[in-house]
This record gives sequence, C-alpha cells and structure tokens, in this order.
Amino acid sequence: MGLAARMSGAGSTTGRLIGLGLGPGDPELITLKAARLLGRLGVIAHIRAAGAGRGMALSIAGGLIAPGAVLVEIEMPMRDDRSPGAAAYDAGAAAIAAHLAEGRDVGLLCEGDPLTFGSFMYLAARLQGRFPVEVVPGITSMAGAAARIGLPLAARTDCLAMIPATLPAPELAARIAAADGMAFLKVGRHLPKLRRVLEEAGLLARAWYVERATWPGERILKLADLPDEVAPYFSLILVHRRGEATA
Amino acid sequence: MGLAARMSGAGSTTGRLIGLGLGPGDPELITLKAARLLGRLGVIAHIRAAGAGRGMALSIAGGLIAPGAVLVEIEMPMRDDRSPGAAAYDAGAAAIAAHLAEGRDVGLLCEGDPLTFGSFMYLAARLQGRFPVEVVPGITSMAGAAARIGLPLAARTDCLAMIPATLPAPELAARIAAADGMAFLKVGRHLPKLRRVLEEAGLLARAWYVERATWPGERILKLADLPDEVAPYFSLILVHRRGEATA
Ligand SMILES: C[S@@+](CC[C@H](N)C(=O)[O-])C[C@H]1O[C@@H](n2cnc3c(N)ncnc32)[C@H](O)[C@@H]1O
Ligand SMILES: C[S@@+](CC[C@H](N)C(=O)[O-])C[C@H]1O[C@@H](n2cnc3c(N)ncnc32)[C@H](O)[C@@H]1O
Repeated sequence: MGLAARMSGAGSTTGRLIGLGLGPGDPELITLKAARLLGRLGVIAHIRAAGAGRGMALSIAGGLIAPGAVLVEIEMPMRDDRSPGAAAYDAGAAAIAAHLAEGRDVGLLCEGDPLTFGSFMYLAARLQGRFPVEVVPGITSMAGAAARIGLPLAARTDCLAMIPATLPAPELAARIAAADGMAFLKVGRHLPKLRRVLEEAGLLARAWYVERATWPGERILKLADLPDEVAPYFSLILVHRRGEATA
Repeated sequence: MGLAARMSGAGSTTGRLIGLGLGPGDPELITLKAARLLGRLGVIAHIRAAGAGRGMALSIAGGLIAPGAVLVEIEMPMRDDRSPGAAAYDAGAAAIAAHLAEGRDVGLLCEGDPLTFGSFMYLAARLQGRFPVEVVPGITSMAGAAARIGLPLAARTDCLAMIPATLPAPELAARIAAADGMAFLKVGRHLPKLRRVLEEAGLLARAWYVERATWPGERILKLADLPDEVAPYFSLILVHRRGEATA
C-alpha cells in the first residue's frame, strides 16, 4: 500500500487483527466487548478442523456476527495432540492479510481465551509487525468447567496449573506435584495415561471429568465413574487436592 | 421455611447465591450472562476492604446494577497476603442468608473469576447445602493482563501456572521450574523476593509487570524496568519462558 493510500483516511489505513475470546461454549459467556465487536466487524475469520463440521468457535459466536460479514474459513488438519503444520497457518495468515492490507479489521474467533492454548497465537505471530494485533480475552474452558461444578480452583497460597494431558507420564507427575488446583486439557486418547498418573498421585477420587462444558451435550462426572477409554476433543479434567465442589 | 412456603411458587422458595465473575476491571469484559443478571437481581452483595474506598468489584459492575437493587456490603479486614478472619466471613454469610431465606436471589460481585483465588469460595462454603449456589465464570486478571500485552500464556505442551507471590522463595522456585507460562498474583510487598527468585531462574528479562490491567491507571512495564519496591494490591507479574509479546 502506497503512502497516498495510507494517508487518505481511516477507511484506507491498514486493518487490525483482533483475537476474539468467546469463552467455553455458552454464547452468554461471551463478553460485552466481544459481542459488540462481533456485531460491528465486517470480516470474521475462523478455524475449522479439516473434515469436521462447523467449528466450535463459529457455533458460539454465530448469532452475534453482523449479517453481512465476510467469513474467512481457515482449514486446519487438527488432532487432539498434534499441531497443525506451518503451511496451514501460513495460508490462513495470507487470507487474513489480504483483508488487513485493504484496511478491513478482521476478527478471529477463538474458543476460550485466545492466549491460553489458542491457535490465534500462530496466526498473530505471522501477522504482527505488518499489522496491528489486539486481543479480547475470553473465559477459559477451565473456568467454565469449574463454574459448572462449583469447584474451587485455587485459594490462599494454592498454585493453579493448566496442564496438557499430552505430556509424557513422568512430566505429568512432576507438574501435578507442583500444583494444588489442576486442569488437564487435550485429554483425548491420553485418558488412560492421565488416569494412571492421577491414581499414582492419590488424586483419582478427587478428579472431575467435564465434556462440552457450558454447551449442549455437556457431560460431568467423577473421573472414577467414567467408563470411556478415549475422551472427545472438547473435554478436560479438573482436580483440586483439597477443595470440594460447592454447587 | 415450612413446606407450604416451599411449595407455593418461585417467589416464596429459597433464593440462590450467584457468584458473578466480573473480569479484571474493564466493564466491557463482563459477560453477557453476568450483565443480564446484574440488571435483574434485586440483591447485590459485595466485599469491601475495611478502611478502603469503594470496592473494585462494585466499581466494575456499578453501571449495570438494577437501579432499585439492595446492596449488601461485606466489610473485610484485607491485606495483600493475609486472609480475612473466619468471623468476617461468618457475618457476611449471615447477611446474605437473611435475603436467601426470604426467597431473594443474591448476586455476589467477584473481581475476575469467582473460583480463581476469589473470596466467593469462603462465603459459598458457609451457605451451600442450605441454599442453592451458582457461579458465573469471569475473565481472570491473568487473561486480562496477557491480552493487554499480547503475551502468549501457553501453547502446545506448555504448562501454565497461577502462583501466589506470597509463597516462600524456595516454593516459588519449585513452582517456576514446573511451569512455562506463569502469572504471579498478590505481589504487594513480596515484589523484591519474587524479583530475586525470577532472576535466579534466569527469567527476569522475560517478566512483565501489569498494574490495574484493563482499568484506568493501568501501568505496564518490563519488571526489569520497574523501580518500585512494593506493588499495589491490583498488580501481577506475567512470564513466559519462550513466548514473545505480540500486541
Ligand atoms: C487448543 S485448547 C484451547 C483452550 C481454550 N483456548 C481455552 O481458553 O480454554 C483445546 C482444549 O481445551 C479444552 N476445552 C475447550 N473447550 C472446552 C469445553 N467447552 N469443555 C471441555 N473442554 C474444553 C479441551 O481440553 C480441548 O482439548
Ligand atoms: C484475591 S486475587 C483475585 C483474583 C481474581 N479472582 C482473578 O480471577 O483474577 C487478587 C489478586 O489478583 C490480581 N489482580 C486482580 N485484578 C487485577 C488487575 N486488574 N490488574 C492486575 N492484577 C490484578 C492481583 O495480583 C491481586 O493481588
């Protein structure tokens, strides 16, 4: 973009990339700020797992997106524990950059909080410097799940950890030893390993399994009562060493 | 309350205690759900530090509270690292219980997320069983602060920890060793100790100091550039071992 275009007013300056945290699933857990931006932004980008249906983030935000908004779909070869390749992020960043360069702000839909295990970061890393990047924080899946069971995550001198279940067993055990409250994300096929490590740490009886927190099809049970051997993508496990569920 | 009262309709049954997560400070970071409840609830309870001015939570929610709502103020002898006495929580719970027993729902204002280092938990523990308790999750101060600097909190196999700066130095060091992303809360007079521990862990240059995140008077600087020896109550420190701020 030339200097003349840059200087000819707001409409022709570079657009901003805005990571929009949408919370864990219930559209009412969207913030006022994200809701306002969703209704105003002309370009909405979202990430869809290749082969899957409508993405989670788009389902959450759907009802709030401006009717005429352009949707940019970024297709990702996603697994519960494998990260999509750099090529997919490069292509996604290029699609977003095309709008930003034309002066259009782009909202990127992010499940939960954008900076907490979110794909937003990989796209932002490719676009920052060239374009302004902003973040609207969101309710994490951990906070959403804890609210559903009234489980205190941390109090006083507790340490609270978000831990990917994808870590090898010895690393999981070390992380557990350093925490009082814990949320294990990306459970998937790592469920049997995590169960074993929690049992060895004496915490199995205190573990809660939460699937699709705050979302239709939500499923909440004590991990000890869960018969499944594999967990779906949208599931996590909450543990507190001492705290009891209150709600 | 007798069986007749219980069965005579919604208006005369026991009220619910609802912990309302309000986010880190910017009233636009309140969720649609909390905003809806704030405008509807007839009784709003909030915690005020004794001797201090208007509480943070009340400042955040103020504009959304229904005009005729009854305010229940719970005064707490609070310090950045000392927990208020059981007597103060007992008195607060009794004041709330009086409304709940009369069938009035009570919204308890909670800065950030209610179950993440929130006083809500102590009041809920005293009222659960007798009354229904619900939680509306909120954006944590950690997520709010990270959004302001675009700092990735966790990605891939990272472990993300919220750590109270009140812990003794050796325990801080152990928590740090087990984490990739970190937020240190309750910094206060523990600032020099935390600085020293971060320096020994080789992380001082990667640490961000965030005061009053998303709030008027917000102050953000690299910890290495902070001249202060004591931090105010509403401040935290963010660190990621590898991630760089993007925004
Ligand atoms: C790539 S991480 C994204 C985390 C998200 N940015 C957040 O702030 O919670 C995806 C993982 O989050 C967890 N998750 C996200 N939403 C969830 C929900 N509604 N219920 C249960 N787990 C969820 C699952 O463990 C899932 O594997
Ligand atoms: C009792 S804890 C409450 C945490 C809150 N429930 C949350 O979810 O973030 C209080 C600590 O949170 C941090 N904090 C809360 N709000 C903050 C803000 N707006 N800016 C910086 N730190 C904040 C400070 O470290 C403070 O000492």
